[in-house]
Amino acid sequence: MPEAVETMDGWYCLHDLRTIDWTKWKKATEEERQQAVEELQTMLREWEEVAEARDGSHAFYSIMGQKADILLMILRPTMQELSEIELRFNKSKIAEFTKPSYSYVSVVELSKYMSKESDNPEDNPGVRARLAPKLPLWDHICFYPMDKRREGNDNWYMLPFDERRQLMYEHSFTGRKYAGEVKQVITGSMGFDDWEWSVTLFAKDVLQLKKIVYEMRFDVVSARYGEFGPFYVGNILKTEDVPAYLAV
Amino acid sequence: MPEAVETMDGWYCLHDLRTIDWTKWKKATEEERQQAVEELQTMLREWEEVAEARDGSHAFYSIMGQKADILLMILRPTMQELSEIELRFNKSKIAEFTKPSYSYVSVVELSKYMSKESDNPEDNPGVRARLAPKLPLWDHICFYPMDKRREGNDNWYMLPFDERRQLMYEHSFTGRKYAGEVKQVITGSMGFDDWEWSVTLFAKDVLQLKKIVYEMRFDVVSARYGEFGPFYVGNILKTEDVPAYLAV
Amino acid sequence: MPEAVETMDGWYCLHDLRTIDWTKWKKATEEERQQAVEELQTMLREWEEVAEARDGSHAFYSIMGQKADILLMILRPTMQELSEIELRFNKSKIAEFTKPSYSYVSVVELSKYMSKESDNPEDNPGVRARLAPKLPLWDHICFYPMDKRREGNDNWYMLPFDERRQLMYEHSFTGRKYAGEVKQVITGSMGFDDWEWSVTLFAKDVLQLKKIVYEMRFDVVSARYGEFGPFYVGNILKTEDVPAYLAV
Amino acid sequence: MPEAVETMDGWYCLHDLRTIDWTKWKKATEEERQQAVEELQTMLREWEEVAEARDGSHAFYSIMGQKADILLMILRPTMQELSEIELRFNKSKIAEFTKPSYSYVSVVELSKYMSKESDNPEDNPGVRARLAPKLPLWDHICFYPMDKRREGNDNWYMLPFDERRQLMYEHSFTGRKYAGEVKQVITGSMGFDDWEWSVTLFAKDVLQLKKIVYEMRFDVVSARYGEFGPFYVGNILKTEDVPAYLAV
Amino acid sequence: MPEAVETMDGWYCLHDLRTIDWTKWKKATEEERQQAVEELQTMLREWEEVAEARDGSHAFYSIMGQKADILLMILRPTMQELSEIELRFNKSKIAEFTKPSYSYVSVVELSKYMSKESDNPEDNPGVRARLAPKLPLWDHICFYPMDKRREGNDNWYMLPFDERRQLMYEHSFTGRKYAGEVKQVITGSMGFDDWEWSVTLFAKDVLQLKKIVYEMRFDVVSARYGEFGPFYVGNILKTEDVPAYLAV
Repeated sequence: MPEAVETMDGWYCLHDLRTIDWTKWKKATEEERQQAVEELQTMLREWEEVAEARDGSHAFYSIMGQKADILLMILRPTMQELSEIELRFNKSKIAEFTKPSYSYVSVVELSKYMSKESDNPEDNPGVRARLAPKLPLWDHICFYPMDKRREGNDNWYMLPFDERRQLMYEHSFTGRKYAGEVKQVITGSMGFDDWEWSVTLFAKDVLQLKKIVYEMRFDVVSARYGEFGPFYVGNILKTEDVPAYLAV
Repeated sequence: MPEAVETMDGWYCLHDLRTIDWTKWKKATEEERQQAVEELQTMLREWEEVAEARDGSHAFYSIMGQKADILLMILRPTMQELSEIELRFNKSKIAEFTKPSYSYVSVVELSKYMSKESDNPEDNPGVRARLAPKLPLWDHICFYPMDKRREGNDNWYMLPFDERRQLMYEHSFTGRKYAGEVKQVITGSMGFDDWEWSVTLFAKDVLQLKKIVYEMRFDVVSARYGEFGPFYVGNILKTEDVPAYLAV
Repeated sequence: MPEAVETMDGWYCLHDLRTIDWTKWKKATEEERQQAVEELQTMLREWEEVAEARDGSHAFYSIMGQKADILLMILRPTMQELSEIELRFNKSKIAEFTKPSYSYVSVVELSKYMSKESDNPEDNPGVRARLAPKLPLWDHICFYPMDKRREGNDNWYMLPFDERRQLMYEHSFTGRKYAGEVKQVITGSMGFDDWEWSVTLFAKDVLQLKKIVYEMRFDVVSARYGEFGPFYVGNILKTEDVPAYLAV
Repeated sequence: MPEAVETMDGWYCLHDLRTIDWTKWKKATEEERQQAVEELQTMLREWEEVAEARDGSHAFYSIMGQKADILLMILRPTMQELSEIELRFNKSKIAEFTKPSYSYVSVVELSKYMSKESDNPEDNPGVRARLAPKLPLWDHICFYPMDKRREGNDNWYMLPFDERRQLMYEHSFTGRKYAGEVKQVITGSMGFDDWEWSVTLFAKDVLQLKKIVYEMRFDVVSARYGEFGPFYVGNILKTEDVPAYLAV
Repeated sequence: MPEAVETMDGWYCLHDLRTIDWTKWKKATEEERQQAVEELQTMLREWEEVAEARDGSHAFYSIMGQKADILLMILRPTMQELSEIELRFNKSKIAEFTKPSYSYVSVVELSKYMSKESDNPEDNPGVRARLAPKLPLWDHICFYPMDKRREGNDNWYMLPFDERRQLMYEHSFTGRKYAGEVKQVITGSMGFDDWEWSVTLFAKDVLQLKKIVYEMRFDVVSARYGEFGPFYVGNILKTEDVPAYLAV
């Protein structure tokens, strides 16, 4: 039986994507709209304080195309905190003007494919920081869920551990070529949501998001073993820019 | 022709997942909301009395993400009782503020892969208890439906009985490693719903839900023969916490 | 080229599944609800007279879970009669409180896999009765559409006639084990709807529906060649019980 | 590289399937309903004049089951004319009481698999008539889109021309057995819609629609290489019968 | 590990497809409709000025069938500009009368399969023009997204570079046969949207759109390695024709 790789798991993660009902929003009174915007900004600022205190992290982006208008990605040490944030957002004024588009529940995950047996990677401060990451709020975001394939001869979970490690190792090289250009946060979601992992990429130059996904597609781990869900790409939406974004 | 495994079947099971229409809920009068909450609490308390009497069992959880807000899982000795509960819930006040998200109809099932021919496992009190289980109302739940694969060379139903038994046996070891951490309820749903089984896991620590699903993915029975439907993860919603959950 | 099996075709069949909009139903006036219930009962009673006269047959069941609330299955000698019934139902008062969930158009079908060449099975009164069946209105129903697989090495339509006959013959044994417990009506739907056949099972004990589907899954004809659509399971809804079912 | 077969292309074709919102229709005033019916009949009669003049053809049928209520199939010499008809229909009164169900954009197509190299089939008056067909308005219609499979060893587009020709030739025999019983119109839709072809069958006896699709399923070209979309079956709806069909 | 091909990337691209709610549009006041039409024409004319200045390009077409009514395809040097245009369109009056149908986010892409190593194709003025293309506003458009297949033995990303180059080279011949008849714009969308590329074809004669897609289907690169998404076909909608198109 193939040996499962151990994982290290960090903060819990919720991606919440919504579509704005612009017609309803325009029909609201100026007062209602102002109330909704202020409440949203208040929430964002409270979450910024949480991030300052290193008790969590979040990202707020507008999304290109009709699949969604806004993406809130939020990280917290416990599932309970995520649940409370989601509930608060659902009950907020702005939520009345949105429709759900997609959401994703997961937990920051690092695999131990690369670690030496003698090490305890969790003792490593770098590892600990990556398990509780400060999201780099660069101009552009790309989010997608994915699976490892289990089909006929292309069955990731039937590969020996060493073969999987080798493929992950090669794959990591592609990622490293984009260091400084693209930062990635990997979360695991087995038992939590419909795909096995989610990938969130941040970039200053949006083209780098395409380039890294393109190049990685030729890595055997992706070419033979990757199954990809929907892709969302977006632009940062700073708290102070929310009123302009929503102005009608 | 491969030999079908015999099963033992217990209580009937309905998973009912709903999304709350928060906008409509907020627009209701305070009186309507109070009526809806009280009726829901009354139902939950009546079902708790049924559970006390060991005439059924149920679980009520809030669900993470946009796929659903609440999950009612209910077990009863007859399909007719489930039907009456579903009808009552459909006609309740709170239902007016929800939309259907997903539901699942099944029956608690134990397979006889592991039993010796000389035994009648149904004489076993432990088996009888597992067929009419008292759901462990731990803090977290994970629910998903699944199939055994029938594709090309990966066709579960074409395997000889002994090979299936061996694979199930190995699989049971993974489950046992999580004893005390994760409790699972398996229900069969052929002829009742769109997948062949449903799995419901309970855990005190939500991370254990991810860990068990992750580790089991490497069991050959999952790696080669498992097909998984949507996954729902949630947090317990106690009867006394319903008013706070729904407060707006 | 593989030889197509001949079929005998009987009454046309419509499965019509609907979801009740309980909120709208509760908002209707008592008078409107009474009118809707009486009109529905009138239709059901007229169809019962048709069934008495052996000019058709029908079944009316409530369905478990969120996929549908009610199922009307109706058999008539001509497609035109089915069309008129569907149109009448669409225009009825009760239909205003329902949303379409699923429907299926087909014709009762018997294959000639088992018949000897010298026989003309259509001369057989038993065969003629099965082509114009009186639906056994037992307590529980299970309905699902299905295909025979055409994938790689598992291509039903590429098998020689004799191999198909042998597989169907073995399959019929499983069915016969449930004689008296489960009655099945097979309809063909190529050219009429999206799957190739529909199966409707009736049982006094709902568990037998699961058992027969489970056991048949191991027949090679299902294991290698069966593709299954959605499954609906329900409880009989007698004409006299309609008011109680719809009471709010 | 496999050689593409040449095609001859004739009139452009739009299938437009809609579901009637019967509740809304019943709520309309008698005057509105009368206006909608008369406008629909006016359009149908104008199209009948176009058909008389051999400048196009159309078919109007009611559809069985919940997938759609009405099907308008319309043929014109240019895409622009189809576009104008679609726009006019969208703006009509009756359209206010319908919801879109499915549509299909294509062009009447004849392949040159059977033609001898020395011939120019387009010189053939029979061929020219088939490219601008007068739709036989028989009592029943069957419409479905389809693809030729491109999967593993079952890849139509990788077969040598001669093998494809041979398979099409055998297939044409099955069709010919139904001459006089079933008339078929094949349209090509690559670049125009989501499947590669659409098939529309007309029959006086609805059972012949099932029989031909059933028998063809065993032709190798279907068994190994056919992928089928949704099937719609219906009954003719004559212009003079529209008021009765819509009467409430 | 197969070598990824390098790409050259140009203008960012948004395809935005919408369905018009004709019933709502007819219910609007004459004044509202006039306002919506004028605002739409104003936007189109501003974009025409941008195109004149060679700072972008766009296309506006009506779409055949129920999948959408209008398609706006827009190219800009930055993702931010696309985002602003999308936001403006979402907030416009006409958008209140539309529903989203489909959208696609991508970037104009040229692959370097054909370029000699010694060349820097980006120095080539022709290449630069193709990366910032002036869309040929011919009468007809065809738009579809696509993937290269990764299945079993048909895995594009596992092919050696030279084999991919050879297949792309053969494929380009088919395209060249349609020079003057069909112009194509290829955009890459990995990391940006759900498919890997989008193809937009322009033709004066709509039949050429079908012919090129048909013929290319037999190229090995399509036959074995192409996976195709939905196809949209449409007719040009000139700014001055918008009022007539929307007149009710």
